[in-house]
Amino acid sequence: METDRLEAFSDGVLAIIITIMVLELRVPEEHTLAGLLDATGIGLLTYVLSFVYIGIYWNNHHHLFQLSTEVGGGVLWANLHLLFWLSLYPFTTAWMDESHLALVPTVTYGVNLLAAAVAYYVLQATIKRRPGGHRVREALGRDTKGKLSPVLYLLGIGLAFVEPWLALVPFVLVALIWLVPDRRVEAFLERERSGSTT
Amino acid sequence: METDRLEAFSDGVLAIIITIMVLELRVPEEHTLAGLLDATGIGLLTYVLSFVYIGIYWNNHHHLFQLSTEVGGGVLWANLHLLFWLSLYPFTTAWMDESHLALVPTVTYGVNLLAAAVAYYVLQATIKRRPGGHRVREALGRDTKGKLSPVLYLLGIGLAFVEPWLALVPFVLVALIWLVPDRRVEAFLERERSGSTT
Amino acid sequence: METDRLEAFSDGVLAIIITIMVLELRVPEEHTLAGLLDATGIGLLTYVLSFVYIGIYWNNHHHLFQLSTEVGGGVLWANLHLLFWLSLYPFTTAWMDESHLALVPTVTYGVNLLAAAVAYYVLQATIKRRPGGHRVREALGRDTKGKLSPVLYLLGIGLAFVEPWLALVPFVLVALIWLVPDRRVEAFLERERSGSTT
Amino acid sequence: METDRLEAFSDGVLAIIITIMVLELRVPEEHTLAGLLDATGIGLLTYVLSFVYIGIYWNNHHHLFQLSTEVGGGVLWANLHLLFWLSLYPFTTAWMDESHLALVPTVTYGVNLLAAAVAYYVLQATIKRRPGGHRVREALGRDTKGKLSPVLYLLGIGLAFVEPWLALVPFVLVALIWLVPDRRVEAFLERERSGSTT
Repeated sequence: METDRLEAFSDGVLAIIITIMVLELRVPEEHTLAGLLDATGIGLLTYVLSFVYIGIYWNNHHHLFQLSTEVGGGVLWANLHLLFWLSLYPFTTAWMDESHLALVPTVTYGVNLLAAAVAYYVLQATIKRRPGGHRVREALGRDTKGKLSPVLYLLGIGLAFVEPWLALVPFVLVALIWLVPDRRVEAFLERERSGSTT
Repeated sequence: METDRLEAFSDGVLAIIITIMVLELRVPEEHTLAGLLDATGIGLLTYVLSFVYIGIYWNNHHHLFQLSTEVGGGVLWANLHLLFWLSLYPFTTAWMDESHLALVPTVTYGVNLLAAAVAYYVLQATIKRRPGGHRVREALGRDTKGKLSPVLYLLGIGLAFVEPWLALVPFVLVALIWLVPDRRVEAFLERERSGSTT
Repeated sequence: METDRLEAFSDGVLAIIITIMVLELRVPEEHTLAGLLDATGIGLLTYVLSFVYIGIYWNNHHHLFQLSTEVGGGVLWANLHLLFWLSLYPFTTAWMDESHLALVPTVTYGVNLLAAAVAYYVLQATIKRRPGGHRVREALGRDTKGKLSPVLYLLGIGLAFVEPWLALVPFVLVALIWLVPDRRVEAFLERERSGSTT
Repeated sequence: METDRLEAFSDGVLAIIITIMVLELRVPEEHTLAGLLDATGIGLLTYVLSFVYIGIYWNNHHHLFQLSTEVGGGVLWANLHLLFWLSLYPFTTAWMDESHLALVPTVTYGVNLLAAAVAYYVLQATIKRRPGGHRVREALGRDTKGKLSPVLYLLGIGLAFVEPWLALVPFVLVALIWLVPDRRVEAFLERERSGSTT
């Protein structure tokens, strides 16, 4: 029961984050294709990227809370902590865009991505320690993707110092590895269901 | 169960898109009726149009997910893909408005409409392939409207090159054919219910 | 079941309208109380007014859909039509504010209020015609408030031509008569429940 | 049943407030760390503070409505009254930020915080008077935190007249005392459950 409202609130925040990013896209002053590319060229690319990230978080969040049936104060705050970092995406995305991938804004974006990944990890760990947390542990297994993502974000931050746009390579890579449908939770739930039938 | 949260998230995103478009309407500087028409004349018209489109998508989305009881990773991404294109409506609408229906912005708007229609088609096809997808196939039947819409969008994009405002004719036409209440899903659900009673 | 999602969507839109109006409040440039009053004086007053209106609509909407258990295509569109007019409140409120209650913006605001009231009336009438609509008819009774509101809006629009700020008198009056808790729906539901017990 | 929709609406409004505050953060014009600190230094700090406040209100609101199973007209309005003051947080936060903690904006922010705390107190008192309100009374007990918060806000407002930034000390303190997980409601619900088992 409690989980319902936490999920509804998180869905609301994620839905708003994913949608208001479009308000940061500046409407081009010239009415040409060149004007569109000039005003929003990088903007549209990073808009897609941030959109995909938020989509991935929603997806994973959704799976995570299918496994946990009750939440306590700790989970509530760990969840808000995650939402905090995600809520900054429109801001750091806009700054990076408007700077046309300058060093500091790109690193700031990377740090934002990293902080959200760490916050997600903390949320997951908090849920694992709760009664019933063994289901999360079993379902997620070794969680290779979850461990790889922060490493790739760190790599991106490092590469930015060589050449800012290089940072986007590992950033895009993170999005791609999560786009591959993740069957762990569904598979676990199926195993569980068939197990209870036997 | 899973469908619930996907619907809630989509409802959230659609509710935000439909509402933040009003933030793109510039408040007129003059305090006269002429000032209102001058600042928002085309704006209000296209605001209505985009509002109706999002309303139609919400309506159809709602019906589609009444027919599908479970979703997998593929459906989640197909749904996000649709939401992505819809989330750009406020941006492309605003650009077209501010350009007073210049060629490139109008074509861009048309391409956005077309991309969303294709994304909806892909979502529908993904659901049809899932277990239980035959219900969607049966309920939607030949789906004449669904097939006609992209053709009309393409026609609008073509007409824009003759004269930009001409593009609005087929665009408005799409809205009108969907405004006619669509009884397919309700009729199917009734048939199904009465069938199970027999 | 269908009602649920329509209510959730409407709640989302109303929640966004009521919240984004704050984005139209200009942050004062001077850091004094005079600066606050100067920049937002009328703004804060009409913000409260529009906030109360949306709150009333949410309240009434909530009651209306407690009485109607199923919705069809007609209700969906009548509901979207209402949401359309409500979605313009942030825009017309902002224009009236920035004009410091000039004639045309004030009349425009009044017309917006009137249009929403009419749209609500149409929604109510559409639900009354549906199977089960007799419950709405019985619960709402003579609906004096519902009939008085458009008259007061019309009066306000008329008074604006004498002196714009006079329009606010009947506008505020509408808000006040609805703030008085409306027990009709609760009373009806209680009668119905005790009736079924007997 | 009624509570559900009130909670959903409140969740929506709170989710939007917490998320749109990021739109008030100005994107720095310089692309340096100094530029980030200069443009958003105080902004980010108060953004965190307001984010935490809204998170606390959501958390407490959530607990409060777990204890009350039915709501009447009075509760609806008391709830809207609370949402009204919370909806002003993005505005008062932005003004305080842009003034770099000038006296009047800081006091205004404090008054906003105080008004929301009072509104929450009124909402709680309204629920306590409803049938079933004894559960809220028992669960919340002496409500030391609830009584301490307004006092700390008042202290902050007073300190602002000595030196504006000093106001932040008690403001931050309020956030900290609420961050400590509040087990009252959970403990009460557990007692109740085990009591009904005996």
